[in-house]
Amino acid sequence: MRYRVVLVVRLKEGLLDPQGKAVEGALPSLGWTNVSHVRVGKDVELVVDAVDEAAVRAQVEEMAHRFLSNPVIEDARIVEVAAEVAGAPGSP
Amino acid sequence: MRYRVVLVVRLKEGLLDPQGKAVEGALPSLGWTNVSHVRVGKDVELVVDAVDEAAVRAQVEEMAHRFLSNPVIEDARIVEVAAEVAGAPGSP
Repeated sequence: MRYRVVLVVRLKEGLLDPQGKAVEGALPSLGWTNVSHVRVGKDVELVVDAVDEAAVRAQVEEMAHRFLSNPVIEDARIVEVAAEVAGAPGSP
Repeated sequence: MRYRVVLVVRLKEGLLDPQGKAVEGALPSLGWTNVSHVRVGKDVELVVDAVDEAAVRAQVEEMAHRFLSNPVIEDARIVEVAAEVAGAPGSP
């Protein structure tokens, strides 16, 4: 069974996010003065072939911890796990 | 009223995603051979001060189109708009 997974990796709260600060600093000159707390993270989409959703979640959490994020400074969170319907875009 | 917004920016379908390919290419050597279709996008979190949710959505869509994404090669999608409760973390 194939599952489409979305994983979000964000810097931990309290850590300075230079990319977010850069965005935030540019907004007023473009006319938007009501935006704050900008943080930029990573959105990782992937397809995993596994027996069930529990196996997918366990594997993606291990991948996030060992490879896709830096657990010292980042939090990784699975925001979506959806079984792929045969014949859908991306299916074999 | 302050709203917390999450915007996801991804390369359009069909476009080559070198970062996703790099991740995908590294996974088998780490023991994960059942992962495919890896795509890496941006996750932008921000707080907008506006009168209502409709105003927030309109503004963030304009920001996404003009500044936070490249509409030629990327799709931007608002995935969350939540009113901030006074006294919550990040509120003034």
